Amino acid sequence: MADEKGLTSRAADFSAWYNEVVQRAELADYSPVRGSMIIRPYGYGIWELMQRVLDDMFKATGHQNAYFPLFIPLSFIAREAEHVEGFAKEMALVTHTRLIHGPDGALIPDPDSKLEEPLIVRPTSETIIYDAFAKWVQSYRDLPLLINQWANVVRWEMRTRLFLRTAEFLWQEGHTAHASESDAEQEATRILGIYRQFQDEWLALGVITGVKSPAEKFPGADRTYALEALMQDNRALQCGTSHMLGQNFARQFELKFQAESGQEEYAWNTSWGVSTRMIGGLVMGHGDDTGLVLPPRVAPTQVVVVPIYRNDAEQGLVLEKAAAVAAALRQQGVRVHVDARDTLKPGPKYYEWERKGVPLRIEIGPRDVAAGKLMLVLRLELPGLARKEALPEAEAIDGLPGRLEQYQRALLAAAVRRREANSYRGVRSYQDARAIIEGTGGFVYAGWCGSGDCEAKVKEETKATIRVLPGEEFRTPDAPTNCMVCGAPAQSEAVWARAY
Amino acid sequence: MADEKGLTSRAADFSAWYNEVVQRAELADYSPVRGSMIIRPYGYGIWELMQRVLDDMFKATGHQNAYFPLFIPLSFIAREAEHVEGFAKEMALVTHTRLIHGPDGALIPDPDSKLEEPLIVRPTSETIIYDAFAKWVQSYRDLPLLINQWANVVRWEMRTRLFLRTAEFLWQEGHTAHASESDAEQEATRILGIYRQFQDEWLALGVITGVKSPAEKFPGADRTYALEALMQDNRALQCGTSHMLGQNFARQFELKFQAESGQEEYAWNTSWGVSTRMIGGLVMGHGDDTGLVLPPRVAPTQVVVVPIYRNDAEQGLVLEKAAAVAAALRQQGVRVHVDARDTLKPGPKYYEWERKGVPLRIEIGPRDVAAGKLMLVLRLELPGLARKEALPEAEAIDGLPGRLEQYQRALLAAAVRRREANSYRGVRSYQDARAIIEGTGGFVYAGWCGSGDCEAKVKEETKATIRVLPGEEFRTPDAPTNCMVCGAPAQSEAVWARAY
Repeated sequence: MADEKGLTSRAADFSAWYNEVVQRAELADYSPVRGSMIIRPYGYGIWELMQRVLDDMFKATGHQNAYFPLFIPLSFIAREAEHVEGFAKEMALVTHTRLIHGPDGALIPDPDSKLEEPLIVRPTSETIIYDAFAKWVQSYRDLPLLINQWANVVRWEMRTRLFLRTAEFLWQEGHTAHASESDAEQEATRILGIYRQFQDEWLALGVITGVKSPAEKFPGADRTYALEALMQDNRALQCGTSHMLGQNFARQFELKFQAESGQEEYAWNTSWGVSTRMIGGLVMGHGDDTGLVLPPRVAPTQVVVVPIYRNDAEQGLVLEKAAAVAAALRQQGVRVHVDARDTLKPGPKYYEWERKGVPLRIEIGPRDVAAGKLMLVLRLELPGLARKEALPEAEAIDGLPGRLEQYQRALLAAAVRRREANSYRGVRSYQDARAIIEGTGGFVYAGWCGSGDCEAKVKEETKATIRVLPGEEFRTPDAPTNCMVCGAPAQSEAVWARAY
Repeated sequence: MADEKGLTSRAADFSAWYNEVVQRAELADYSPVRGSMIIRPYGYGIWELMQRVLDDMFKATGHQNAYFPLFIPLSFIAREAEHVEGFAKEMALVTHTRLIHGPDGALIPDPDSKLEEPLIVRPTSETIIYDAFAKWVQSYRDLPLLINQWANVVRWEMRTRLFLRTAEFLWQEGHTAHASESDAEQEATRILGIYRQFQDEWLALGVITGVKSPAEKFPGADRTYALEALMQDNRALQCGTSHMLGQNFARQFELKFQAESGQEEYAWNTSWGVSTRMIGGLVMGHGDDTGLVLPPRVAPTQVVVVPIYRNDAEQGLVLEKAAAVAAALRQQGVRVHVDARDTLKPGPKYYEWERKGVPLRIEIGPRDVAAGKLMLVLRLELPGLARKEALPEAEAIDGLPGRLEQYQRALLAAAVRRREANSYRGVRSYQDARAIIEGTGGFVYAGWCGSGDCEAKVKEETKATIRVLPGEEFRTPDAPTNCMVCGAPAQSEAVWARAY
């Protein structure tokens, strides 16, 4: 089912709607390599804004960027048993280094160029990074070592979706080494806090945070902290993870240091990452049946100015005003674009920029110029905010950064409201939980005994998984004290949902 | 041979000196994967500064960033004949996507996961990008399409050196499509100009520019423009290239558009790139027997403040002043670091920061505090600049950005002087050229008939190649009018040198 402008509605087919929004907003495109995607300039512009903010946050907390090799020796990956089991089924393997013409003239891998040991295209870089750390760290004075890398990684996924699950994606991966368990634990939770601040205050996603169950943690970690957002189809999206790795990798890679006591000890590691997947989260978290909705802080274009005119005289007048308004807004640090194309009428321009999620449109016609006014139109109607407002020019311009911030906050408030409206707390019976999961969907808060069997049963029967054992501020007061599955005493509250 | 501080001198062994400078300045490290390197935080910090400047320059000229897949189907690479021949011998090939335990329990590529068509880890992205452009471009209104990508690429080199030649390296690759040959030609030379400005004004390399001979051009290009710097061992370093691709790729990938005339035409492409190799150029272009020398504009730390004290009272006094000076410099946009470590005496600190190439050191002792003065020490003595100068505090601080700029310009002037002192113009006989090439080295300017045979003969006998046919402003007045090899009339002047 398509609306008048040809976009499938969310209600009709959420998955088709998602693909259409991504492609019509020119965020990304499928590539001829199965499972890989092309991130188009508009999508990449969002990623650049995300990178800038996160990079500043990482640097402000003492982290430095570096770059480690794309290829990892098979023997490295094999060293941490859980780690290799977790990734073995989805690895791109480099086996040859040269092409030659085969007997029929076609190009084939040259058998003589076969590598003795296959190389793995990194699915994540713990192994190769901690091997390097082991060379760099001698004494407790070299710790903590706080490194981040912006990189591409490859996981050979069978079912792929643009941004959400692709064979290759872009991310940052932080890797740190510490002298004590408590220092590493503090780092893992500090990063969780940074991610949460970013995903709430910049992406307006309204995430919940907590700890993964052992079955869902990172292969090789002692403990995985995660951020989960609820999409508009009431499925969860994992938006980032921060792992307390304990000494698991340090032991395998001989990452030791001389402690203040003089004794040699293994270092404690953390690793953490967020990826281009967050762009998919923006689409599914905020988009509507018209298209993309972008929070102003990560919108490549925050304001589009659309001139309205019927003849050359009006065009000159209106374009001049549009340029002046744009210049005044740029002075205030607003990312603004004047759509001066004369091949399109205003209506189609409005629709194009709405489809691309631009937060605010300014319409300027000859009567506005004469009256010294500007018409401001927000991308969305949100509680407490007028969608359309005609204001005197100076007032409109001075107030614009504040208006964008109001809109930013209103998007977060709406996301949190939607999340809570679709969170079911105090669920006591598996039957009730199942009805929710298989019905409307959403976050089901219930007791959990801690057994992997109960968790596996729910997953097998409903496809829902434990997203997190919620952090303190997300827990339900008077949460059920028994496991919703087996009735045994609950070890903790757990949040179940179907997820991307 | 090592000097008192253990660094090999340039005169003794330039190649060993290079490796030691790179590793001791903590720019990069070898990795366990043959031919790959780890870019350490200090080296990556230089790359980030380079990226920021270039990215701004690209965006100011209308380019946008995007991201294309790491993997390229073999059939794509095979389409442009010259292109595949140029890269076939150095390609990392992905053939499998899963690991399983073999008969002896060891992990091996799962034969069942073998790909029908091997994938190539991109050595460059013309093919996959122009395939995408073909989908995006319909009409002349969609042109020019000006795209850049920051990415890693892989070329399986047999002999590798940190930064200069590694299996994987980081770069940017620009790819554009235009409606006419002259538009594309203009783009290729505009980018050459941007690169030159960057490499002279930021990297202070004093490059020469020109066109490559057909034998040295990019496989698949009509014409390759290049920038060449002369290193201190008088070998050339190619620092960047900009290719006019003509319609070669457009024809193979059906990149067509409807012209204003209504006719369908093939687009004209350019591609261009610079890489982390430029960091190697900084080392070999400016370094000395003490270590790295960085131009201030790309120095992660421009100023290091070293406090000098003998007791706790002095330490408090001096550190307080150091902090105030650093704060005042940061206010002026200077990247400054206070080395407050109390585990090292000033001498070793001086040496450490000199080894890392920090442009300027400020020494502050109790007597300086009392006298209200600061001791400024440049990393290098350069003509027209006092290496050491004690100045009243306010004067020192206010004048510091200017002093750094003076030093920046002096480094460029020194590089240009060195280049010209080692450029041999008007060379008329191959015998003379050979004596220079096999003797001191340097740029040999001589006539060339345009024949690949003459070029090949020189390469075979002396290992020198034509670096460029120099651009107008680099040409020799009254250049020889005959080919230095065969004596036939010269088609153009050519610059020969041995190169990295």
